[in-house]
Amino acid sequence: MGLVTVQVPFQKIGIVGLGLIGGSIALAARQRWPASVVIGVDRPDVLDLAARLRAVEVTADDPAALADADLVILAAPVRQNVSLLFRLDGILRREAVVTDTGSTKRQMVDAARALPSRITFVGGHPLAGAAMGGLEHARADLFAGRPWLFTPHDGGDQRALETLRSFVTALGAVPSVVSVDEHDRTLAFLSHLPQLTASALMDVVGSAVGAHRLALAGRGLIDTTRLASSPADIWTDIVATNADQIGPALDTLIAQLQELRADLGRGERLTDVFGAANRWRQLLPK
Amino acid sequence: MGLVTVQVPFQKIGIVGLGLIGGSIALAARQRWPASVVIGVDRPDVLDLAARLRAVEVTADDPAALADADLVILAAPVRQNVSLLFRLDGILRREAVVTDTGSTKRQMVDAARALPSRITFVGGHPLAGAAMGGLEHARADLFAGRPWLFTPHDGGDQRALETLRSFVTALGAVPSVVSVDEHDRTLAFLSHLPQLTASALMDVVGSAVGAHRLALAGRGLIDTTRLASSPADIWTDIVATNADQIGPALDTLIAQLQELRADLGRGERLTDVFGAANRWRQLLPK
Repeated sequence: MGLVTVQVPFQKIGIVGLGLIGGSIALAARQRWPASVVIGVDRPDVLDLAARLRAVEVTADDPAALADADLVILAAPVRQNVSLLFRLDGILRREAVVTDTGSTKRQMVDAARALPSRITFVGGHPLAGAAMGGLEHARADLFAGRPWLFTPHDGGDQRALETLRSFVTALGAVPSVVSVDEHDRTLAFLSHLPQLTASALMDVVGSAVGAHRLALAGRGLIDTTRLASSPADIWTDIVATNADQIGPALDTLIAQLQELRADLGRGERLTDVFGAANRWRQLLPK
Repeated sequence: MGLVTVQVPFQKIGIVGLGLIGGSIALAARQRWPASVVIGVDRPDVLDLAARLRAVEVTADDPAALADADLVILAAPVRQNVSLLFRLDGILRREAVVTDTGSTKRQMVDAARALPSRITFVGGHPLAGAAMGGLEHARADLFAGRPWLFTPHDGGDQRALETLRSFVTALGAVPSVVSVDEHDRTLAFLSHLPQLTASALMDVVGSAVGAHRLALAGRGLIDTTRLASSPADIWTDIVATNADQIGPALDTLIAQLQELRADLGRGERLTDVFGAANRWRQLLPK
């Protein structure tokens, strides 16, 4: 896809958390806006890699380095982002836009209500992933053609929202706006439930058949459990901050599995579920 | 991989059911043994396609056409294979080896005990699949490097087993032997549980978020529900003939999901499950 021409929207871009998402934003931003400065904040070992990959221009292991940033992107696990947000008032010295990339939005938005007026927060969530997480898998084109949701709250700041839309469009993403509650409910089903299911399934299958028999697994199990490679730390935070939505989603799946189980001999429920699943599957992106 | 040189093991190879598996066996057998005759049995519309694809030399919509076959491969859904097996005594006129490709083995093996001595049955199960079923997706290299399980019973017929091992090795597969019960228990976890889970998950997610929001789905949901495109008819038979093994497998997964659900707020169970799932996942074939 062609590059979208936009003016330099920010001069100093701070990114906290250089994992797959934060690292990919850094790489893409440096490609698009060579005149902007990208400041990366993470642990020293991650910063070493970021410097080697030329993902950022300035590295810092303390968010205090963000003092002059006019855009801050919080790309750490959700609850770390919440803590960081509370600290920004003491760190940022000029007008700034702050966004995040977390998979749940309500706790962030609640925290954002405590920010002073010179700091504008708009929640964000790029729906981009890869088979493996971590900075070593970051790529500048990770967001190409992928949705990037924004969750403006309390009326929102239109100017900040439009600037962020331009920013992520220039990274190749397709921005759209949803309400905070709608985001967390929808993602509970689209993302969080599949993740928990894949991890639970992998654990159950591995424990039942053992290491030797797992070698017989075909493409079906391999694809179905691909998400089971996801790191626990990110997911502990996602689940803790969206438990009230993930709980009912899990209940729905458990009820579905119980109905299938009760009807294994007859198979009528199976025919219905397979038929519906076939139809829904055709509506997924290719 | 290089072709394995083997003598023509069979002169007339009958294949009943020209779907992904039966069609791929036909294509591969014709490549390896141009001197053998491959007879395909299926519905007329499938036979038309098989003739166009040159997958078989002789087409027939009645198993009576298999009278002179010395190898018969039953590749229809499991319960159709069971019915066909009962009819073979009235059809086959010479010594013949019969095998099947079904995903469950106990009902087939029970049926095989009624065969006359000139017909030798050895249950088989190629662990090969593809994103889409049907003859139109069949390919001669479907079995390359994939396991092909045999389940000899009642002491088994060593000569027939060795011939079949040579046969599937020549198709590129890696044969191995498991007991009938071990097969059905292992496959309940490795294949049947992932299939039911993927279909149930796709139905639950689609019903909860609706067609419009499904467009936001990322690679995670797409991979996790890839199996939800599987056709119901094959799976109705698999589930009906392995319900006593699939039931407990479903119970184990349901219990795992219930434990995760009960601990969403604390996340200790989640950390354990993700850790174990990460480790099991690394043992899957690449």
